[in-house]
Amino acid sequence: MTRNDYFKPCDLVIYGALGDLSKRKLLISLYRLEKHDLLEADTRIIGVDRLDETSTSFIEIAQQSLQAFLNHEIDQNIWQRFSQRLSYLKIDLTQPEQYHLLHSVVDASSRVMVNYFAVSPFLFKNICKGLQSCGILNAESRMVMEKPIGYDLKSSKEINDVVADVFHEDQVYRIDHYLGKETVLNLLALRFANSLFYTSWNHNTIDHIQITVGEDIGIEGRWDYFDKTGQLRDMLQNHLLQILTFVTMEPPADLSAESIHMEKIKLLKALRPITYLNVEEKTVRGQYTAGYIKGQSVPGYLEEEGANTNSTTESFVAIRVDIDNWRWSGVPVYMRSGKRMPNKRTEIVINFKNLPHNIFKDSFHELPANKLVIHLQPNEGVDVMVLNKIPGIDGLIKLQQTKLDLSFSETFKKSRIFGGYEKLILEALRGNNTLFLSREEIEQAWTWVDSIQEAWQHNHTPPKPYPAGNWGPVASVALLARDGRAWEE
Amino acid sequence: MTRNDYFKPCDLVIYGALGDLSKRKLLISLYRLEKHDLLEADTRIIGVDRLDETSTSFIEIAQQSLQAFLNHEIDQNIWQRFSQRLSYLKIDLTQPEQYHLLHSVVDASSRVMVNYFAVSPFLFKNICKGLQSCGILNAESRMVMEKPIGYDLKSSKEINDVVADVFHEDQVYRIDHYLGKETVLNLLALRFANSLFYTSWNHNTIDHIQITVGEDIGIEGRWDYFDKTGQLRDMLQNHLLQILTFVTMEPPADLSAESIHMEKIKLLKALRPITYLNVEEKTVRGQYTAGYIKGQSVPGYLEEEGANTNSTTESFVAIRVDIDNWRWSGVPVYMRSGKRMPNKRTEIVINFKNLPHNIFKDSFHELPANKLVIHLQPNEGVDVMVLNKIPGIDGLIKLQQTKLDLSFSETFKKSRIFGGYEKLILEALRGNNTLFLSREEIEQAWTWVDSIQEAWQHNHTPPKPYPAGNWGPVASVALLARDGRAWEE
Repeated sequence: MTRNDYFKPCDLVIYGALGDLSKRKLLISLYRLEKHDLLEADTRIIGVDRLDETSTSFIEIAQQSLQAFLNHEIDQNIWQRFSQRLSYLKIDLTQPEQYHLLHSVVDASSRVMVNYFAVSPFLFKNICKGLQSCGILNAESRMVMEKPIGYDLKSSKEINDVVADVFHEDQVYRIDHYLGKETVLNLLALRFANSLFYTSWNHNTIDHIQITVGEDIGIEGRWDYFDKTGQLRDMLQNHLLQILTFVTMEPPADLSAESIHMEKIKLLKALRPITYLNVEEKTVRGQYTAGYIKGQSVPGYLEEEGANTNSTTESFVAIRVDIDNWRWSGVPVYMRSGKRMPNKRTEIVINFKNLPHNIFKDSFHELPANKLVIHLQPNEGVDVMVLNKIPGIDGLIKLQQTKLDLSFSETFKKSRIFGGYEKLILEALRGNNTLFLSREEIEQAWTWVDSIQEAWQHNHTPPKPYPAGNWGPVASVALLARDGRAWEE
Repeated sequence: MTRNDYFKPCDLVIYGALGDLSKRKLLISLYRLEKHDLLEADTRIIGVDRLDETSTSFIEIAQQSLQAFLNHEIDQNIWQRFSQRLSYLKIDLTQPEQYHLLHSVVDASSRVMVNYFAVSPFLFKNICKGLQSCGILNAESRMVMEKPIGYDLKSSKEINDVVADVFHEDQVYRIDHYLGKETVLNLLALRFANSLFYTSWNHNTIDHIQITVGEDIGIEGRWDYFDKTGQLRDMLQNHLLQILTFVTMEPPADLSAESIHMEKIKLLKALRPITYLNVEEKTVRGQYTAGYIKGQSVPGYLEEEGANTNSTTESFVAIRVDIDNWRWSGVPVYMRSGKRMPNKRTEIVINFKNLPHNIFKDSFHELPANKLVIHLQPNEGVDVMVLNKIPGIDGLIKLQQTKLDLSFSETFKKSRIFGGYEKLILEALRGNNTLFLSREEIEQAWTWVDSIQEAWQHNHTPPKPYPAGNWGPVASVALLARDGRAWEE
């Protein structure tokens, strides 16, 4: 699976090629794949949009994007190779009859057509109809889309239905860029290649699990969009639940897309529903007020540009999740995610149980439990916290918590770490669906999240204020304190 | 337990003060304890020997010893303090009536008398009788002795009986300097303060254990002594069995000497006896022939100075040990120890079981099992070997074995690591018996070892030759290979 000639070349068609997603992310990632010689020699990239550009002007636009968003100088040799793949096609995506133009650039007989929907979901139906009517798709064709895939179960189903009219489920690649991260993938290795962790990964030895996805940024000029969505739908429904499934799913029989999707769906189905009856004890909603982040004063959510001062949308959510299956009975998972936190930080903490007996009382009245800390942001890495004897002659045994550090950047200095995005684009070009989301997964996640959203509405649960620069409202601390636990510092 | 004034000052009487043990080890260690302010202000050190020295000349001898065997310059301030503690008493140890002289220097009413028997065991009886007849001992007095405590069960009992006539068992401190090593003590912390290891420490998750104590030196001018003893009695009976007990004993209820001695005895009693019926399949005897170590040519055992060329004494031994209890059923411990090995190396390897299923076949046809490697020599430290994903975009998941390194010198840079010897002397001066060997332990160890020795004699098992610079005879490899295993490289 490592030699490039194993894979077929593609016609990668980007719908919305002049949009932000394309210019800021897609073209950058594709250039990086080019740089590391990971694109098939015959793979082409076709930008499609409504504006009156030519291939020549599109190549210029691409070059400007790279200059603006690439973190280093453009290498002229690589750019030479890369730019030769690029071409542009003007199509008004709302006009089905214009799609036949694709036949002039796409060669479905010798290349795989990969359709990247880098546009708003309201255009998906038009694109699907256009592609269908011009008859360019075949069984090998693929489509790629990114979140948000709907804002609830109903709207998500509508999008998936539109796509399903034209593409089979196994042709559809739904991206959550967290699943391209090294540390998320390393979770599979940690869990399923190491007996030390494999045999401990259950309710017998694990006390509870924490998942934190904190952003220090606020709303960044997209108040309107965010206010309709809220943190629960914007972050927890996708990123946090995806991380949760990788941490807690049963061992898959193999690494195929089918096996892994199956285990993820099973796990999502086992999440205990949260309803209006228990939503107050199981969840915390928060909304930031003015405060300080790293010494800078920042406005509150209701004072942001374009804000509706009556908004009750949450910018922070914390949830106690219970998993009703054999492995995790009695092991809560605490998830929290918010904006205007003290810093950008994504991490998973596996807290092992305390030992039943303490023979080191002189050193620690209560022995701190072992922990496995998996960092995703700002740096990727894995720490194991264990207790060791402090070397020293005085007294019999004094203990100290020691970090067994497995930082990726340190340990694997030579291997350049790719971004999750590049990884996933490459997987889509190579036709491996394992790291993408299945329809059933997404719908299962929405079902669970919708129930929380409805419960909040039913109860008129207001968000609790928290000053920017804090880890959410005090109630989030209390959520764990009630169970005798505390968030990882 | 950390403040010095908690402990009583001692009169440390060294019998054999002019001998090698005293000059090369004891005085050096005591100076180091002085340097770190670990000796009670009123503690005195009384050298006793048969030669016609004075306190003044003894102090000079001590200074010469420090100059010869201390690895760094003598600090004049420390030496000033230290030398003031020293005095000398001329006693012919074989003459009981001379012991009354001790009354002139020992003050048993304000200090604890600690009697260090730094002489050959044949003098123990004389010393005990002398001490008894002069009536200087009380219930607080202690005696310290080092290995060899006999060369079989019978001779060990004789020594212990002689000592037991005068000292209660809890007044006796038997030294095995391996038990003062940081890493051996850290075993207690690793095993009993960390749920990750605690819950895995049994036959469910551990496949087998290896203990290696390899020396690169040969016989070093003590051929006669060694030839009567052999590697089994000289190293395995004490150091390796001691390490074994710390690795495999049941969790003690507390860290008291009583609790730990009890668990060690229980473990030693659970060792499956080796008899003439199975000694050939369970043990390997070896004797080195001429060879090369680190590029240097070295003579064979039978060519060493003073060698009897008909000797069949073993300079290498490897044993498969089975422990007949609930925790270790089916988990063999392989021990090996020898002279003229490729390098000096002492280590314990805990080999975990293979996982029942492998979903990473593309990367590893057989997944290497997790390992915990505990190094004692040449450097102390603990490594955990786990599998991680190699960062990289190409292919789904490639694994690599990664070392989680917990090296003491690195992690605990600030804490000076004391030698095991200093640690144990300090414990003896402070009256903590936990890290010393109980009589029952030693006798139990001899019982098990004697059975092997007798079986070899019964079968006339000759030692197998191995060229110096190898890890013993090929039969040692075969010992594990028969079980589908291999020694740690």
